[in-house]
This record gives sequence, C-alpha cells and structure tokens, in this order.
Amino acid sequence: MDVQEQQKILCVGLVCLDIINVVDKYPEEDTDSRCLSQRWQRGGNASNSCTVLSLLGASCAFMGSLSAGPVADFILEDFQKFHIDVSLVSEHTQCVLPASVVISSINTGSRTILHMNRNLPDVTAEDFSKVNFRQYKWIHWEGRNAEEQVKMIQQVVMYNSTLPRQQRITISVEIEKTREMLYQLFAHGDVVFVSKDVARHFGYESAEAALRGFYSRVKAGAVLVCAWAEKGADALGPDGVIIHSDAFPPEALVDTLGAGDTFNAAVIYTLSNGGSLQDALTFGCRVAGRKCGFHGYDGISRDFTEDWTKS
Amino acid sequence: MDVQEQQKILCVGLVCLDIINVVDKYPEEDTDSRCLSQRWQRGGNASNSCTVLSLLGASCAFMGSLSAGPVADFILEDFQKFHIDVSLVSEHTQCVLPASVVISSINTGSRTILHMNRNLPDVTAEDFSKVNFRQYKWIHWEGRNAEEQVKMIQQVVMYNSTLPRQQRITISVEIEKTREMLYQLFAHGDVVFVSKDVARHFGYESAEAALRGFYSRVKAGAVLVCAWAEKGADALGPDGVIIHSDAFPPEALVDTLGAGDTFNAAVIYTLSNGGSLQDALTFGCRVAGRKCGFHGYDGISRDFTEDWTKS
Repeated sequence: MDVQEQQKILCVGLVCLDIINVVDKYPEEDTDSRCLSQRWQRGGNASNSCTVLSLLGASCAFMGSLSAGPVADFILEDFQKFHIDVSLVSEHTQCVLPASVVISSINTGSRTILHMNRNLPDVTAEDFSKVNFRQYKWIHWEGRNAEEQVKMIQQVVMYNSTLPRQQRITISVEIEKTREMLYQLFAHGDVVFVSKDVARHFGYESAEAALRGFYSRVKAGAVLVCAWAEKGADALGPDGVIIHSDAFPPEALVDTLGAGDTFNAAVIYTLSNGGSLQDALTFGCRVAGRKCGFHGYDGISRDFTEDWTKS
Repeated sequence: MDVQEQQKILCVGLVCLDIINVVDKYPEEDTDSRCLSQRWQRGGNASNSCTVLSLLGASCAFMGSLSAGPVADFILEDFQKFHIDVSLVSEHTQCVLPASVVISSINTGSRTILHMNRNLPDVTAEDFSKVNFRQYKWIHWEGRNAEEQVKMIQQVVMYNSTLPRQQRITISVEIEKTREMLYQLFAHGDVVFVSKDVARHFGYESAEAALRGFYSRVKAGAVLVCAWAEKGADALGPDGVIIHSDAFPPEALVDTLGAGDTFNAAVIYTLSNGGSLQDALTFGCRVAGRKCGFHGYDGISRDFTEDWTKS
C-alpha cells in the first residue's frame, strides 16, 4: 500500500442534527397530529459526504464545530459508527447544537424543512493551520464562510507547491447555496461542485448551460460539476468537452435527503482513486440514485459498490 | 417537621422531549424556512407537573419509563436540575425516546404539534408494587394505561386501609384525553381532574355543566376539578357546591404549553398542604395564568409563590 492509499479524504463544513418526521399528510396549522415514524440523523453536507465516503470504503475525516451535550454525543457516536475520523472536530461547550426539523409527507412526497440558526462558529483559517496536511490526499470544502475558506485553501496551495504533482492534495469545493459570498470559491477548487439551485439563480436552465456559463470563473485546469436531479449530471474540464451521465432513479422514491451530498462523495471517491471524469459522474449518479430508494445511508455498502462499479 | 412534611408527591405518567420551534409564520408545505428560536424542553404531563411542584417548593418524585441514550441523558439531567426524585424511573435500553415537535407561530399564536408514538412500555402494576408507599403523601396518575393504573390505585387503597385517615395517601387522577378506556379512572381518585377536551367530547359546554354531568362517576367523597382555559376553573366536592375561580391571564400570552399541567400541580400543591378547595382552584388559576406569560417554567419560583399566596 503506497502512501496515497493510506491518506484520507477530509471534508470541512457543517454537521447538524436532522429530526425527520414522516407523516401521512402535512399537518394543518394549530392541530395535533401523529407521525408515522421519526428518526434522528446526523446531517450537514460535509458530514453526509463523509458518511457516504466511508460506506464506499474510503478513509475520511470531518472537520467542523460541535457543541457539547447530549446531541453532540449522539453526533460523535454516529461519526464513530461510520469510522469517520473526528480528531479535527472542535467542541464549543457554550453553544447549542440545534436540530433541523424535517416533515416528510408520504402523501405528496413533500419535505418541509425548518432550519435553525446555529450559534456555532465555522472553522477558521487559524484552526485549519493546525492540520497535518500529510495525512490527506483530498480536501473538500462545503461552501460556508468563504473568505476564511479561501485562506484555508491558500494554505493547501502553499503546501502543494512544495510537492511533486502526484503527491499534491486535490482541492474540491461545493457551492450549493445562492449566497453572493460563496461565488468567490469558484476560482479555488481543482474540482468545483455547483448546484442546480445556484445555476437557476443565474438563469441557467440546464447543467450544460450552467457549466458553459460558469466555466470562466474556475481556475485553469479545474473540473466543474453540476448535478441536475432527475436529469443526471454534467461535468466540464479543461478540454472543453461536456461529459454527461443520466440519472439512475430508484424503483420507488423513498428519501432524497442528502442525495446531493451522496453524489459529491461518490464523485470524489472515484476521482481520488484515479477514475476518469466519466466514471466519476456515472458512479455519482448511480450511488445517489440508489440512495433515493432507501432511508438514510445504511443501504450504501462497499459490497454494493463493487457490484455497481462492475455493472 | 412531622412525617407528612417529609413525604413526597409522586406523579406517575409520561416524560418525553418537546422540541419547540418558534417561527414567524407557520411554514407552507415543501418549503425551507428558518426558526426564530428553538428550545428543548422536558415534556409529558406528569413530568411537567413535577417541575411545577418542585418550583413551588414541594418534594416530588416522577415515575415513568425512559429510553437510554442522549435524549434520556438530557431528560435525567433536567429532572435533576429541578430536584425531582427519579429513583422510580425505569430505563429501557432497547427503546427510543421520541421527540414531540412543536411549531409555535408568533404571527397567529398557533401551536402545531407533531406527536410521536413511543415504543416505551407504560408503568405496570407490577413495577408499582415495588414502591415504598411510606415515602409519599400524595400520588397522582396521568391517565394512560388505565387498567393497570386502576390496579396500582388499588394497591394504594389497600395500604391506606391499614392507616388512620390523616396518614393516608391522597390519590389523584387526570383524565385529559378523549379515550374510552380512561373514563374508568373517574371512579378511582380522591381528586379527579377532567379536561375541557373530555368535557366537550361529552357535549358539555361549561366547566359547571361538566362537573354536574360527570360527578355521578366519581367515588363517594371525591373532588372533581375542571379547568376551562380563559374561563378559569371549577370544582365540585361531596357537598354539592360548585367552587369557581376566574382565570388570571398574563399581560401578554407567550407560551400556553403545559399550562394544564401547571394548574394541576398548583391545585395538588395547595390541597396537599391542607389548603381549601377554593384556595387550590384560585392558586391553580393564578400559577397557570402567570406561566402563560413566559416560556417554560423557570419563571415559577418559590418566592413568587409566596407573593402569590399572600395576594
């Protein structure tokens, strides 16, 4: 096993608690009703991507902040269950980790989400300067406090500049939310994931149009990836050729929560193992599609993966 | 201090977690929105009544079942914070303690509640047979598994039959939900709390009508109590005289969650200290009314109580 195989994939971003309430129909205001089921799930984009990476068989680590207390205990236990390295997680004892409440209606397939503002600080460039870069082959940022995140990426770029190309850390970023400050991240990833939401916010009506439109924003040599739900996903690299994969919808749509995070993880997994961009896209769509056929992530397993890779 | 003063009030019933999400307006289906605030609160009628009893200065204990895990830890810590004896709480490691999700709208004052079915067993007559009755001067049951609860009450009746009247344990029951099986509890309390909900279910349009209608169901000598929200509360004892207290609404209605449990606790508190039925009703309405003026229960304090009792 060479050094790179022992190196991990690090995801920097958010972890939170999702309380998912499955209901017959969305409750009317001012009524009492009963859920069909309720489950607690560790959430947050970077945290979800770690789960999927780990289930696919990659070594990975999560960096983010956490409160103290019972919810944090639940979250930490769940990270451990999935063998995700949490040594870079910082605990903030004075903060509360709030829950996002998800109301998932069986009747209409709708999912209504009540988010909560966290009073937890995001990871800073100073926190990040303590990271031992030699442990990682890939670092992924969920776009949040973009100014600080650019400073973190610059640290990795500096580190990379001392190394031969094949030993460098690959940098990926995700621009999911339509927030002006996140768009500066386009210029800083070797791999940039941009969401359908952001694309539509800019007036693009397809993944291809978005890739063509946004490509001028990425740095030289970068790959831009855009998933478009049931239309599959497209990617564009420096050769100017648009790569496409169709979606692989499950027989029955059960749970789309975290499908995007699953896609990102599967793409990173393939690319970090030396797969082609086409392989990465197809595998991303395949794993994300399957994931929508069951609740949570436990249905993604390494055995499955080997099947999927073969097929 | 005589023996009775050292004895506790025991409340048997439910404890659960309430996750209270305060929103600007009730979310439309299939949208993402943000809460103004979120708080976690130990809930359940018997558990809430314990909180209030303890804040009023009474020694009290809670008996019910609890899961293991982080939510149970939160619940147990909160019981301890309020000095509530939990030595009769049974932990069920295989069960999950679900949360009730409350969406509280500032705009309309509405509260929409998503309940979750618990897979936790209720307290059984066998569990109850291990209780050392000598520790208690009052035992209150939140009506749930009524058949078992009647058997528990019979154990107390047996115990009481060996003692002089002034050393007996007072038995109270709460019939809050409109479930046929709960109505057998009418016949078993020295003090019976019946809810406006149950009264209206039977076609009664006032507390007085409900008391007159239900009184034939209670045992000889019992007191029947019915609170009617902003109309205050009424009670009827063996002398056939209806006692009434008006409500004491707060200047601004902030949080009505648990107001009924607060009322019950304040009535039990007064009666268990030898107060009259009129005193108990008035104090119940006063404390419950005040409670609606703030979030949670922390605003109820023993100092306040002394003021209120004087006023």
